[in-house]
Amino acid sequence: MPVTPYEIIKAKRDGRRLAPQDILAFIDGFTLGEIPDYQMSALCMAIFFRGLEEEELGAWAKAMLESGDVLDLSDTPGVKVDKHSTGGVGDKVSLSLAPLAAACGVVVPMISGRGLGHTGGTLDKLQSIPGFRVDLTVDQYRRLVREVGACLIGQTEQLAPADKKLYALRDVTATVESIPLIASSIMSKKLAEGIDALVLDVKVGSGAFMKTLDDARTLARTMIAIGAQMDRKVTALITDMDQPLGRAVGNALEVIEAVEMLRGRAPADYTEITLALTAQMLVLAGRAKDEAEARLKLQEVIRSGAAVERLKQIVSAQGGDPAAVDDHARLPTARGSEDVLAPAGGYVTRIDCEAVGLAAVVLGAGRAHKEGQIDPAVGFTLFKKVGDAVAAGEPLVRIHFNNPTLVPQVRARLEIAFQIGLEAPAPRPLVVERLVS
Amino acid sequence: MPVTPYEIIKAKRDGRRLAPQDILAFIDGFTLGEIPDYQMSALCMAIFFRGLEEEELGAWAKAMLESGDVLDLSDTPGVKVDKHSTGGVGDKVSLSLAPLAAACGVVVPMISGRGLGHTGGTLDKLQSIPGFRVDLTVDQYRRLVREVGACLIGQTEQLAPADKKLYALRDVTATVESIPLIASSIMSKKLAEGIDALVLDVKVGSGAFMKTLDDARTLARTMIAIGAQMDRKVTALITDMDQPLGRAVGNALEVIEAVEMLRGRAPADYTEITLALTAQMLVLAGRAKDEAEARLKLQEVIRSGAAVERLKQIVSAQGGDPAAVDDHARLPTARGSEDVLAPAGGYVTRIDCEAVGLAAVVLGAGRAHKEGQIDPAVGFTLFKKVGDAVAAGEPLVRIHFNNPTLVPQVRARLEIAFQIGLEAPAPRPLVVERLVS
Repeated sequence: MPVTPYEIIKAKRDGRRLAPQDILAFIDGFTLGEIPDYQMSALCMAIFFRGLEEEELGAWAKAMLESGDVLDLSDTPGVKVDKHSTGGVGDKVSLSLAPLAAACGVVVPMISGRGLGHTGGTLDKLQSIPGFRVDLTVDQYRRLVREVGACLIGQTEQLAPADKKLYALRDVTATVESIPLIASSIMSKKLAEGIDALVLDVKVGSGAFMKTLDDARTLARTMIAIGAQMDRKVTALITDMDQPLGRAVGNALEVIEAVEMLRGRAPADYTEITLALTAQMLVLAGRAKDEAEARLKLQEVIRSGAAVERLKQIVSAQGGDPAAVDDHARLPTARGSEDVLAPAGGYVTRIDCEAVGLAAVVLGAGRAHKEGQIDPAVGFTLFKKVGDAVAAGEPLVRIHFNNPTLVPQVRARLEIAFQIGLEAPAPRPLVVERLVS
Repeated sequence: MPVTPYEIIKAKRDGRRLAPQDILAFIDGFTLGEIPDYQMSALCMAIFFRGLEEEELGAWAKAMLESGDVLDLSDTPGVKVDKHSTGGVGDKVSLSLAPLAAACGVVVPMISGRGLGHTGGTLDKLQSIPGFRVDLTVDQYRRLVREVGACLIGQTEQLAPADKKLYALRDVTATVESIPLIASSIMSKKLAEGIDALVLDVKVGSGAFMKTLDDARTLARTMIAIGAQMDRKVTALITDMDQPLGRAVGNALEVIEAVEMLRGRAPADYTEITLALTAQMLVLAGRAKDEAEARLKLQEVIRSGAAVERLKQIVSAQGGDPAAVDDHARLPTARGSEDVLAPAGGYVTRIDCEAVGLAAVVLGAGRAHKEGQIDPAVGFTLFKKVGDAVAAGEPLVRIHFNNPTLVPQVRARLEIAFQIGLEAPAPRPLVVERLVS
């Protein structure tokens, strides 16, 4: 008996398990426009309350994945591994991780997103490098993955179109915050890249979408379960996002910090998160037998300069100016800067990560809505991080601006974001937990 | 700060109470087409899970009520009282209740619906009387309420248009079965009629929308609460709908049974339910001090013939043939009939009410979808009801048909619907409970 869209919504509403073929029919119908938005939004709200069980989840992600092209990279030898992050402030990990992994022999096909709301996006950061193109064709992408070992582009219309359409609908119907829907959205896009394995960076804390460790763990496990159903190995690290990662927030500023990381000169937190994630990629790709061996290999490509060299190759292959990697004056630079000073001495006890991200949006470094323009030059340099001692009047953070009229409100937001107390807080672990499939 | 539709959906999703002005803005925006269907369906699904508290419920019903015209019957003297039933099989109560109440001096403005699915509709039954019109203008309706004391018409485009639009959406998004949404839908339509008080017939059992007493009670209380917020007295009776009401199922057949009721010759269950509901109307209208006095008055208008006379006046005023009330040959009559016989002797232990209703749809007496046509002549006469003794081979039910090719499948459905056992089941109360505001 044919099952109608109505019956599928009702079954989920009443807590019954959906059959894989019914999920496929619903998502296909939605993608083709045969099932209207109002039925999909009702189903998503029912899923928000009732969840999806493992088998349903696999069928949902598979239907989204197969709504478009699935790239075939089998003509490129080697194990293809990507990394996905759930997003944060100052998260420039992909910019250093891709050349590091590629320099160690991992093939890295990476399709990234743009910044939205308080979080930045890898594509925006890359495009602050003059000439860098992220809108390559699928053929160009496939060729660069093979020839350079890594390629970083944007989402195309052909990959997981169901996810694109569904995400836009969820965004306006308060159905984004559903772990099974988040997990299947991420996994459908990532698996469409043609990867063999995936490393997930699930961020937790005030600046992350997952505010609690429980939620972060559930999201990680859900994505691992989807990967398992698709025969893809997935390793997830749950990492701290309770303050911005590193010291740079803003697109060109983050590119500079990423280059510094490849030279072994970046802040400790950013360096550690990047090495931890990249090491997992090496292990999944069979380039190291364990994390310890992987870290030795990573240290070697940093020491030898092979990692920076690989970044230049990637930049050059994607139309960017490789000289900008060495000469940062070739990157967009803000006209002015102003420091926010500590109102009192003590220790930095908290940096409200989301507030810093939203201050960056006000300054022009991020976008409040999808069509927003960004200014690649502007952003912040954090002189002090959580736990650092600070004297009254000492600079906490520098605002790099182009439009001076924006500075007062940005400054006000940053002043509230930094909290100073008399005692240093207990340090938080950077990598909270590792989950494997 | 303006609250966006997104924020309203999210608040309800997360179990927060909505402000009355936000509910009003959402429903107005939806009615005007400014808030798209996909946001309303997401909100309705969130309400399915989270419910509406009393204050929200009042605001929701009021916004639906005030989305269109609210009739003003203040130029008609007397207390205006209507009855609403949640629908059942063989439920021809309105046909006898309206003339009974009017004959006792209650003013009865009644806007009714059509049959859908397994339940019949008052408008379809009325229209089996030759010439009877239910599509009167508001002015005609107002005049007949004043002059005849009762008028029975269909829903107009001007009354509660938000409800019409919302109901169509809920119908395809599995959000019909939400008690607060059901209650506010009913109450917004009923209060738009211009009534002072309302009697509710909330049916419970296998043939009703509310399958359990708990649900029926919650629905009744919810409607009473909405009435209280609008300063309208509401009395609800919870009545049994575990088997068809009376012996006639089908439009013209039910008109005949209703006329018989007004002559004191109808089956006991139908008679009792009608008297119980009408008595509540008399009490609410101040035409009797209590139910006992009301029942005496009702018996008197039956005995004197005033009730049948009032029905003829109503029929005549609405363009129908009043002679059909006495001469049933003037009503549509089916060409053939066939009886379903008892396969064994014993007692009727159960009549699957919904199955009988759906068999009537197959026969043409009801409609499966809104645009379906009905045949006013066809239907069933039940010779046996639950608890009746029956001998093997004795007729259980007569099928009145026009199209003989439909009979085998109708017969098969009826054979399954009747269960015969060796012991008579315990009798069920007809009026289960009374709730007052």
